[in-house]
Amino acid sequence: MGLITLISDWGLSDYYVAAVKGTIYRYHPDAQIVDISHQIQAYNSYEAAYVLKNAYGNFPEGTVHLIGINTEESLDNIHTVAYYKKHYFIGCDDGIFSLIFDDEPESIFELNIPMESSSHTFSSRDRFAKAAAHLASGGSIEELGSIRDSIVSKILFTPPINDNALKGMVIHIDNYQNLITNITKSDFDNFIKGSKFEISFRTKKYRIFKVHDSYDDVVYGEIVALFTGNDILEIAINKGKAASLLGIHKKDPIVVKRM
Amino acid sequence: MGLITLISDWGLSDYYVAAVKGTIYRYHPDAQIVDISHQIQAYNSYEAAYVLKNAYGNFPEGTVHLIGINTEESLDNIHTVAYYKKHYFIGCDDGIFSLIFDDEPESIFELNIPMESSSHTFSSRDRFAKAAAHLASGGSIEELGSIRDSIVSKILFTPPINDNALKGMVIHIDNYQNLITNITKSDFDNFIKGSKFEISFRTKKYRIFKVHDSYDDVVYGEIVALFTGNDILEIAINKGKAASLLGIHKKDPIVVKRM
Amino acid sequence: MGLITLISDWGLSDYYVAAVKGTIYRYHPDAQIVDISHQIQAYNSYEAAYVLKNAYGNFPEGTVHLIGINTEESLDNIHTVAYYKKHYFIGCDDGIFSLIFDDEPESIFELNIPMESSSHTFSSRDRFAKAAAHLASGGSIEELGSIRDSIVSKILFTPPINDNALKGMVIHIDNYQNLITNITKSDFDNFIKGSKFEISFRTKKYRIFKVHDSYDDVVYGEIVALFTGNDILEIAINKGKAASLLGIHKKDPIVVKRM
Repeated sequence: MGLITLISDWGLSDYYVAAVKGTIYRYHPDAQIVDISHQIQAYNSYEAAYVLKNAYGNFPEGTVHLIGINTEESLDNIHTVAYYKKHYFIGCDDGIFSLIFDDEPESIFELNIPMESSSHTFSSRDRFAKAAAHLASGGSIEELGSIRDSIVSKILFTPPINDNALKGMVIHIDNYQNLITNITKSDFDNFIKGSKFEISFRTKKYRIFKVHDSYDDVVYGEIVALFTGNDILEIAINKGKAASLLGIHKKDPIVVKRM
Repeated sequence: MGLITLISDWGLSDYYVAAVKGTIYRYHPDAQIVDISHQIQAYNSYEAAYVLKNAYGNFPEGTVHLIGINTEESLDNIHTVAYYKKHYFIGCDDGIFSLIFDDEPESIFELNIPMESSSHTFSSRDRFAKAAAHLASGGSIEELGSIRDSIVSKILFTPPINDNALKGMVIHIDNYQNLITNITKSDFDNFIKGSKFEISFRTKKYRIFKVHDSYDDVVYGEIVALFTGNDILEIAINKGKAASLLGIHKKDPIVVKRM
Repeated sequence: MGLITLISDWGLSDYYVAAVKGTIYRYHPDAQIVDISHQIQAYNSYEAAYVLKNAYGNFPEGTVHLIGINTEESLDNIHTVAYYKKHYFIGCDDGIFSLIFDDEPESIFELNIPMESSSHTFSSRDRFAKAAAHLASGGSIEELGSIRDSIVSKILFTPPINDNALKGMVIHIDNYQNLITNITKSDFDNFIKGSKFEISFRTKKYRIFKVHDSYDDVVYGEIVALFTGNDILEIAINKGKAASLLGIHKKDPIVVKRM
């Protein structure tokens, strides 16, 4: 046993993914390795954090998550393992941990196990894989390095609220071209408080006055707003491609108004 | 043990695949999970059925196949588990089961295990994953719900035959741009009955008078017809890209005539 | 136990990968299967060899590597299993083995286990998968066929050296658009012997006078040369896309001169 997940921007055409997996198996032959995604946009820690934040909680307690993006170590960016909600996270702390967690992790350690090769370019294989194998095979986090006080803080844009408007934005466009916002169900409910509302986009042409339970609550080709399995507001077109049909891009505003 | 395969239109850039796998591992830590494909065209049950139909029989008996496409439940589209040729299939019955099976499955059950979350948008994670874990860990199909009489029927275009012609079509273009038709070896043999024949396409320019055993039976760049490992007629160009070189698309006709 | 890796040009949208995995599990239910890549350019044995050469050494001894590219057997291209540095390699010997290995393998056998189907088009499923399952479950290589004397020789372009210049080239562009050359650290060091040097490209505009240890040794957007985790010279732009920004393609020259 010993579940290890991988997330990275390595793509699937190269030897990078396999090199990391081979190394894990060398140190822990019984590991179960799961790919979260290797198609994160190059160097985009925000996208990696979004995907991992929504994936990790589905895994059993004790799962080890190896984060293979922006892994070059520096004085500011420390190779780190954090323990949070009974999951382990290994990566280079450029602030990505703070984007994944909702509050401070229970423990934070600086990885100081030796690198496998003289090169500094492939930390995921040369250091993180060993640390992941160590944890997944039952080793303690304390053995991996020295304690750190806190993680680097990066701020996610949480939607500002004033008297009349909750101003969110599109933070992700998924494979169906559904628009994922940064508006949570609890933020939405707290703001609306049962009154009537309007959800509007960059273009004035489309407005939504209702949140549905499922895509099929509207006919094919119709716009629908709903809260997804992770309680985040999503704008979609039933069986259609919302992003291109509505001309909406990442970071475009999604505004909720009380009426 | 307990093999579970996944097929879907989720893509590989999002958290969806990982969320389903994590959930399966939570309910069945020893599961072996195999991706069939997550790059099925969005909402295309026909393509998913084609790929799964050609894949599943290679797996050991008892394998569980989770179908993550068009999963929204409705009065017409029931969440279903079917047992067919000693394999389990879990999905939303929009007719996709009838496209995968050649005849009626041995048993059909409506899934009525509770959903994991209040949302209706991610049935693969919130219901199918639990059902798959249950079956893969040795649980019985009867415990998953109530018996159904029959599956929804969707019709695949089987090639019409008249006195002189067997009129098939291209149903799939693979990664090499080989043209996969809907003409089976037995349909072809029954129609030809040993006589001479001609295979023609949309354009009159190319015709084929022979079916070969392997791509290399013709020189590089030459057109070749052959029956693949699944006994389906395929038109290819040896080491070349038939679809773009011949200008042929999905659903284009492939006609066999006796001479 | 029993690790089996797969590398191929099948892509991820078809049933080919799953058919091979299912077959392996049928013959060896406890196999651990790892994808190296299925996105190798169609028919490109050179690219497959590059990726596998850089991946395989990370895996534990005894791992079986199944090579699913250009697999059609002929009198010249023999279905082969080779044992090299305590790893097994199964594929069709069009010269690809010679591109992966640095010297002769310890043993070479012609596979003569029967094909699974009457078709000749899917050897990876119908023959290689069975051979891989046999080896991964502890079977001996001798049982798989008859001994061969040598493998087919294909030549990689090793960089020619004259008095003043080491003339390498770009052999691979990775997911970050980093330029991977065919210049090894030992070739470079032997040529330079501690003197000053200049690395130049097709365009005279850019030149490099130093090899760094890591990408971050230069500021964002700056060109950097370094030896990667596999001791191969790489030209990159820190957090940028070297290939498109410098206008450099595969097979373009990278020249090192002593000054």
